Amino acid sequence: MQIDLDGRWAIGGKIHGGYLLRALAAAVVSDEHPHPLAVSAHFLRAPDAGTAEVKADVLRTGRRVTQSRASLSQADLCIEALVTTGRLHPDADPLWSDTTPPVLPPLEECHRMVPDPMPGLHVGHLEFLDLRCDPPTVTFASGVPGPPGRLAGWAQVLPEGSQDPVLDLLVVCDAMAPITFDLGVPGWVPTIELTAYVRAIPAPGRLVVQQHGRLLEDGWLDEQCDVWDSRGRLVCQARQHAGYRAPS
Amino acid sequence: MQIDLDGRWAIGGKIHGGYLLRALAAAVVSDEHPHPLAVSAHFLRAPDAGTAEVKADVLRTGRRVTQSRASLSQADLCIEALVTTGRLHPDADPLWSDTTPPVLPPLEECHRMVPDPMPGLHVGHLEFLDLRCDPPTVTFASGVPGPPGRLAGWAQVLPEGSQDPVLDLLVVCDAMAPITFDLGVPGWVPTIELTAYVRAIPAPGRLVVQQHGRLLEDGWLDEQCDVWDSRGRLVCQARQHAGYRAPS
Repeated sequence: MQIDLDGRWAIGGKIHGGYLLRALAAAVVSDEHPHPLAVSAHFLRAPDAGTAEVKADVLRTGRRVTQSRASLSQADLCIEALVTTGRLHPDADPLWSDTTPPVLPPLEECHRMVPDPMPGLHVGHLEFLDLRCDPPTVTFASGVPGPPGRLAGWAQVLPEGSQDPVLDLLVVCDAMAPITFDLGVPGWVPTIELTAYVRAIPAPGRLVVQQHGRLLEDGWLDEQCDVWDSRGRLVCQARQHAGYRAPS
Repeated sequence: MQIDLDGRWAIGGKIHGGYLLRALAAAVVSDEHPHPLAVSAHFLRAPDAGTAEVKADVLRTGRRVTQSRASLSQADLCIEALVTTGRLHPDADPLWSDTTPPVLPPLEECHRMVPDPMPGLHVGHLEFLDLRCDPPTVTFASGVPGPPGRLAGWAQVLPEGSQDPVLDLLVVCDAMAPITFDLGVPGWVPTIELTAYVRAIPAPGRLVVQQHGRLLEDGWLDEQCDVWDSRGRLVCQARQHAGYRAPS
């Protein structure tokens, strides 16, 4: 099927990764299995705004899950993904949990991430996401020294009252700035692989997002992003492997 | 190409997931890009021992990475995977790191995980992996109460002096028992998705492995497994999404 990649979602001319992940997952969800449980995408080329071809093939349908391949192409293949879809239950409770959201200051004390942080840079997805970060975690934006390698904040998809809060988690889990901003090592951080697990249907209200990395070595960086809902429940966990290209 | 799935790697008749991941990655590495940087596999059906067909398609080759699709089938498709390969450098040093291995007791105080833990259960991969766990983290095996949801230990691929220690990391990152054993909730934990990032070429010597989970809810469980080498460097980080089926 043909889809239109909305240029308003571009960062420096290239379309936001989470927006693309959402588009791929949207192409494979079904009435029986409406939720993307696991989405694994390998990024080959960054697509431009405009028309793109999305191809989806069901590999297997079972009672609990459907497993599909989904790809996005323009002239060439841009993203190849595997998606397992199923059904999450709104009344599910944890049988066991070892995760708690970070404690954030009140919204008004947080630092709103703006779509135009500096001349010549437009961060498109921040037009569609109200993202307010805990100041010590966004040293680069707030000037407040803080622990490096971790960014945390409140997130709300705009406009409020989204039509599909589950699919929107795929945007939210890729919304933070690269942790390299906070580490003070500028450079280009192209995502090579991103896997997201959607764990629960989010309750209404603001989400809490935390991103951290483990290792920057040999030109490669991992980043993990966790998302909790207003009840403090883990609703999405994503991890990406990205290249790191220092400015030459 | 046809490969033989060695029945000695079976657990309850089904072939070990890490062994399968290794086989898929081995099918796509090249002289130019000999290391699997990111492997994302979705498991459709558990293959049996015996002949399997592995199909590999290069999607894109660039200077830094090659991105491929790889699948494993018997009568039906069993595993569909995406693999990004590249070249890791043995002399690479971390530019930044926020990871340290767990402190383990000496080898002789650890609990060796045996391939025949109870009558009727054979854990095949433990014939090929010397895995010795910190007793408090394997309550189920050692009887020592400990923190739930985390397993840690020393690992050594057998025989020592592996031909490909980088590919072997894909076996090691899926070698621990499910954390549900430690949580005391028996049941079947079929992997739906597993993504592994290989971060560095391991130095010779024993590896340190730690597995932990975050959330068991709505019939689903995540497990993260990290592997460090004898220098204390993070060499592999894997995460899987698995179903959880309590005994009926």
